[in-house]
Amino acid sequence: MAITLKQAQTVIEAAIKKSLEPGVKMNIAVVDTGANLTAFGRMDGAWLGSLDIAIKKAKTACFFDMETGEPGKLSQPGQPLFNIQHSNNGLITFPGGVLVKDSGGEIIGAIGVSGSVVENDHEVATYAANNYK
Amino acid sequence: MAITLKQAQTVIEAAIKKSLEPGVKMNIAVVDTGANLTAFGRMDGAWLGSLDIAIKKAKTACFFDMETGEPGKLSQPGQPLFNIQHSNNGLITFPGGVLVKDSGGEIIGAIGVSGSVVENDHEVATYAANNYK
Amino acid sequence: MAITLKQAQTVIEAAIKKSLEPGVKMNIAVVDTGANLTAFGRMDGAWLGSLDIAIKKAKTACFFDMETGEPGKLSQPGQPLFNIQHSNNGLITFPGGVLVKDSGGEIIGAIGVSGSVVENDHEVATYAANNYK
Amino acid sequence: MAITLKQAQTVIEAAIKKSLEPGVKMNIAVVDTGANLTAFGRMDGAWLGSLDIAIKKAKTACFFDMETGEPGKLSQPGQPLFNIQHSNNGLITFPGGVLVKDSGGEIIGAIGVSGSVVENDHEVATYAANNYK
Repeated sequence: MAITLKQAQTVIEAAIKKSLEPGVKMNIAVVDTGANLTAFGRMDGAWLGSLDIAIKKAKTACFFDMETGEPGKLSQPGQPLFNIQHSNNGLITFPGGVLVKDSGGEIIGAIGVSGSVVENDHEVATYAANNYK
Repeated sequence: MAITLKQAQTVIEAAIKKSLEPGVKMNIAVVDTGANLTAFGRMDGAWLGSLDIAIKKAKTACFFDMETGEPGKLSQPGQPLFNIQHSNNGLITFPGGVLVKDSGGEIIGAIGVSGSVVENDHEVATYAANNYK
Repeated sequence: MAITLKQAQTVIEAAIKKSLEPGVKMNIAVVDTGANLTAFGRMDGAWLGSLDIAIKKAKTACFFDMETGEPGKLSQPGQPLFNIQHSNNGLITFPGGVLVKDSGGEIIGAIGVSGSVVENDHEVATYAANNYK
Repeated sequence: MAITLKQAQTVIEAAIKKSLEPGVKMNIAVVDTGANLTAFGRMDGAWLGSLDIAIKKAKTACFFDMETGEPGKLSQPGQPLFNIQHSNNGLITFPGGVLVKDSGGEIIGAIGVSGSVVENDHEVATYAANNYK
């Protein structure tokens, strides 16, 4: 099952709602299980450089079926996946990319959020992935 | 003035509404006046290859402040802008990219639509640009 | 349904068998419905430049759910999709890319063949798509 | 001597056979001595992001006539080849890329495997390189 546009838009709305709490401005990307962009929204005034990062975070989570922070740990200097970021036209491997699952627990896509510190990016992405239904 | 996320999302909803008439499945991209993606939506089942085309149409319209069909005419063999498509990481210069203006007539962004024949792409983009308010 | 590796390998073997008739040397790529490479084989001595072409043909057929020759007709000078090849990191729109369907007629992937004149490329691709089962 | 398609396909079959032991799902690429893709296979359900990594591992091994883990050691911070991954459209320098030699010990190509932890990737690649004959 791939995420529908309606679901992807609801994920973005949940992310926007959560972003308004700390008052951060996010780029929010949602991809399907093929890592193809399904929906995107950039909050007014969000960092321009975060646009590409949000998309790459969503793709990275999808590429390896895991949150983006995980390959980030394994790709530090001296770690097994050092510089894996050079693959797939650029991975982003710090937090902010999270898998989106349906009510049955099946992966249907991923969300990538970028625009603040990684803690906020991750919190917003996680909230949206868990509260879009 | 740049298009707001709220406006961009309304543009996309107008495009989706118009697409449902002939029953076509569109990729719809909205960029601001800096040619940066502001919002995006891919209708369920839309051609995968049209994702990139929709984004490039919106950017192309923005790059030159004109509908995408215009540079298409000027870039034919023997014409002044022959093969201008090689610039800017790839332009798409056939119809489906249209400027979005505010109520005062000022350009605030552009929409790119791809997923059907160019006549439909252009009609949907034009409708959305004129009926998002 | 996406094509399995076993099916993709059988498609390639059918293409190789067909290529041996006229004695041509082909690059043969098979992608799934997400346009992701599933299997590939380059016959000994096949043109090096055809490697990328074969992969792009398979992707192009998948991107638009049609044989690669179709967008080729529509993208000639003066035609509606002129220079569409600049999208998606490069399309190849001459014959040699064909959809692969399962026994129920559902699209499960696509094959791209390159290494000879387009008539041979197309014939080999079509044969393989129809005789892999 | 460059690897033949028949040999490359046998390398892939050996890699698949070895992957089935721990039950991992691999992307497997084989390149010739010119670093050109000769054969490729993606096991059903293998990580999408590993497709590009497998190809880059095979190319990297071929580029420098060594296993991919070697330049990985030399490209750590403070080491002589720091960030060499930026060359050649992206190198992958952790284990999983191994040279393929003929019965006389001459290099005829390289295999790249990606889809699990690097220990498994390397074990599968090494097994296939040594057991394809």
